[in-house]
Amino acid sequence: MTGKNYIGFQQSAEGNKTYRTFNPKANTENATVFFEATDTEIEKAVRLAEEAFPKFKNISGEKRAEFLRTIADEILALDDALVAVYCAETGLPEGRAKGERGRTVGQLRMFADLIETEDWRQPTIDHAIPDRQPMPKPDLRQFLIPLGPVVVFGASNFPLAYSTAGGDTASALAAGCPVIVKSHPMHAGTGALVASAIVKAAEKTGMPEGVFSNINSSGIEVGQKLVQHPKVKAVGFTGSIRGGRALFDLAGQREEPIPVFAEMGSINPVIITSGALKNRASEIASSYAGSITLGTGQFCTNPGLILGMESPELSEFVKDLGEKTSAIDAQCMLHPNIHNAFVSNGEEVSSQPGTEVVAIHEGIRPDNYAQSKIVTTSGAAFLENKKLHQEVFGPFSMVVQCKDEEELLKVIRGLEGQLTGTLLAEPEEYGKLDAVIDTLQDRVGRIIFNGVPTGVEVCDAMTHGGPYPASTDSRFTAVGNHSIKRWARPFSFQNFPPELLPDFLQR
Amino acid sequence: MTGKNYIGFQQSAEGNKTYRTFNPKANTENATVFFEATDTEIEKAVRLAEEAFPKFKNISGEKRAEFLRTIADEILALDDALVAVYCAETGLPEGRAKGERGRTVGQLRMFADLIETEDWRQPTIDHAIPDRQPMPKPDLRQFLIPLGPVVVFGASNFPLAYSTAGGDTASALAAGCPVIVKSHPMHAGTGALVASAIVKAAEKTGMPEGVFSNINSSGIEVGQKLVQHPKVKAVGFTGSIRGGRALFDLAGQREEPIPVFAEMGSINPVIITSGALKNRASEIASSYAGSITLGTGQFCTNPGLILGMESPELSEFVKDLGEKTSAIDAQCMLHPNIHNAFVSNGEEVSSQPGTEVVAIHEGIRPDNYAQSKIVTTSGAAFLENKKLHQEVFGPFSMVVQCKDEEELLKVIRGLEGQLTGTLLAEPEEYGKLDAVIDTLQDRVGRIIFNGVPTGVEVCDAMTHGGPYPASTDSRFTAVGNHSIKRWARPFSFQNFPPELLPDFLQR
Repeated sequence: MTGKNYIGFQQSAEGNKTYRTFNPKANTENATVFFEATDTEIEKAVRLAEEAFPKFKNISGEKRAEFLRTIADEILALDDALVAVYCAETGLPEGRAKGERGRTVGQLRMFADLIETEDWRQPTIDHAIPDRQPMPKPDLRQFLIPLGPVVVFGASNFPLAYSTAGGDTASALAAGCPVIVKSHPMHAGTGALVASAIVKAAEKTGMPEGVFSNINSSGIEVGQKLVQHPKVKAVGFTGSIRGGRALFDLAGQREEPIPVFAEMGSINPVIITSGALKNRASEIASSYAGSITLGTGQFCTNPGLILGMESPELSEFVKDLGEKTSAIDAQCMLHPNIHNAFVSNGEEVSSQPGTEVVAIHEGIRPDNYAQSKIVTTSGAAFLENKKLHQEVFGPFSMVVQCKDEEELLKVIRGLEGQLTGTLLAEPEEYGKLDAVIDTLQDRVGRIIFNGVPTGVEVCDAMTHGGPYPASTDSRFTAVGNHSIKRWARPFSFQNFPPELLPDFLQR
Repeated sequence: MTGKNYIGFQQSAEGNKTYRTFNPKANTENATVFFEATDTEIEKAVRLAEEAFPKFKNISGEKRAEFLRTIADEILALDDALVAVYCAETGLPEGRAKGERGRTVGQLRMFADLIETEDWRQPTIDHAIPDRQPMPKPDLRQFLIPLGPVVVFGASNFPLAYSTAGGDTASALAAGCPVIVKSHPMHAGTGALVASAIVKAAEKTGMPEGVFSNINSSGIEVGQKLVQHPKVKAVGFTGSIRGGRALFDLAGQREEPIPVFAEMGSINPVIITSGALKNRASEIASSYAGSITLGTGQFCTNPGLILGMESPELSEFVKDLGEKTSAIDAQCMLHPNIHNAFVSNGEEVSSQPGTEVVAIHEGIRPDNYAQSKIVTTSGAAFLENKKLHQEVFGPFSMVVQCKDEEELLKVIRGLEGQLTGTLLAEPEEYGKLDAVIDTLQDRVGRIIFNGVPTGVEVCDAMTHGGPYPASTDSRFTAVGNHSIKRWARPFSFQNFPPELLPDFLQR
């Protein structure tokens, strides 16, 4: 592993600005020195991507599938070296590294399967009707084509599955778009290793140089330049609302605006009905203590907001959830900056009027380990204070005690857009859930029934996205086969002679 | 017909600001006085739409289809009264009014057919695998749901098919989104009559009040307020680049940005190969003289740019095209403002260095009738002067004479995004068209072979859209069944009990 950029197939380190990643568990910097990309290197990466595009988009689906599968193989071939760097850069355990690697490789193979036939292009054929009155109907054949070079910003919390060769990259390459990754500075080494696997796979399978580049940067300027570059045609981002919105704004202000799919903040409201509380409050508290602290609370679907009806059962549940959550051992966060933000955001929220800290983890907490926190407040307080809606990234959750169903619906209606909502209810209540489900549906991308929101299945029917600020465009999902549609557009051939049409439009 | 707004089912005229439409053929104002909507009226229309949304989105596809079909019937029932107002407000002939009415009614019925089954929602089902290792696979069921209230801006050049009950409105209603139309001031009477038909249909078929409103305005502030209103969730627009971009920018700057699908400018490049020029230059000149002047050149797919290779045949074609175009009688434009813009834009383009006016219509030209114009220039001049790329809305076209294929490809590559491209070629050339088709594909939404770009078939396989500035989001089409996707987003139910799932997800 070197700290150089990948500009096309070449390693490159022309700049003077360098940085290192940090091991939050050991609380020290890691050894490798990374070289921030210069303007010349950025320009070269974009030029190579632009040149690669017409070649890459015309490579058959079967050959592009081979490329994706070879990336998966090359990632697996990195073996323990990748796992070691991953753990050293994130403080996450080996099991998580391997699980996430499995998901990453699985996604690449899923998209490979998808593009082996051209069905993903949604070919739609309208045959001509030459004798139609008053005008003949022309022959029209529509299908999806790729947008052009895509810039992908890696996510801090998914160094593999949502970074260098993660879902955005895999879906964009599958669509036929060259990808330039702006490597996440917190796990630049993991990114560099994965980048080496992608480049190796591209060379092995005869892909054009420029189909992939990996750009190092510890600041925000490099990413801004990439998003503003006229030859870049779309952007994928996973991260904070502030970061995603800044890129969305830049992209919208370009002479030629381009789509930015940013998956950003979510507090993932969970609604517990009175019936569920009566029948299984303790079981729910146990599973939610686990969900809130899973991965140190660093999942985008972490349950940050729990809604229930004021009652002795809810009070008891709040206490129980607090005890069970703080009984779980403290775990390391991804980076000191993330830990600091967790502490200060948690303090800001829990110091708002009308809130009460129910429980806080008081066990052993080495540097960068998170002290989980459960807070509660009333429906009225939540309704009048938007600060209580903000995401506290980490093992934090707030229980809002609503005085009646009307207030509950008002709270849901007043929420910002969310990735998920969860509903815990009993069979005897099914007849009266319509209003809650309907109201919740308008604010989220997915509703989970009697479960926890953490855990995002990679499959066809997954929606990982939602109204703003969960994502910048609720009309797309970031996970699953349908996520390829973010990087493609419909195009029609009219009255084309068959010999000039691609095979899959010959019907 | 009154000049009042439709705020929900009620006619309303609370404001003092009034305006009248103009008859460009008679060169006088029309009689009806229109009342610009006040802030209170705007607020009420949006509130009604917001309230209607949860009801409307849950009305079955069959019932919504009935609503759309009844709109079509009510528009036809307006009969000659609608045709008369249409002609008086546009200067367009009766035949065009009737043709466009047919298209409008056809679109409404097409969307009715589409939503009678729920297939348009693209239901995608992943069944659970409870015993999958290491984690059970959940049951996931994804489908499309409507975004919420949509604002539609009518088009000046399609008072029926792309205005009050046009493609944007029909597709948004079909998706389950209430629609607020910002009526086009040039044809406010046509809009008011169609609005009355929609309201009548909504009442007849039991739709909730607020499912439709029609807002009058002669300026830009009312439209801006609608786009900025927090309860509005998407915007459809057809018109100028300046207007569309302004709305796109406003929508992007909202606290919650919303999607704007604006279909804007296009000069629709046409490439004539040497073979086509050799074999049928005269025939091409005839058909293009017709296409350039069709509807007084006021179609978004009007061929404003013709590209060919420098040669005696091309020089002869340019001359012939000029003669044939100027031999066609002058026709009335939609409005004095549009005529003035046609004159000044045409003069600006044809006064650029390196351009030559080939022909100009010199026949009888009453007020507001357009003097068609054919201009020519070299590939080099076109490449270095972006002013030559600008759309001259009206019967105007520019022939660019390229010195070789390399320059031709450079010209195509340097074009802004376009709705269409057209290729005229002979069978013996099919083997060497790859580069032109591939390069053109990147700049357009549709390529027509051996035809004219004017004429947009309303069908499944139509793409009416394209890279910016043809549209603000090339990933959608404004025409055809697929245009419904602009107003819908994917949503997933996870592990839902069957009794809580809609019928079409029961599998």
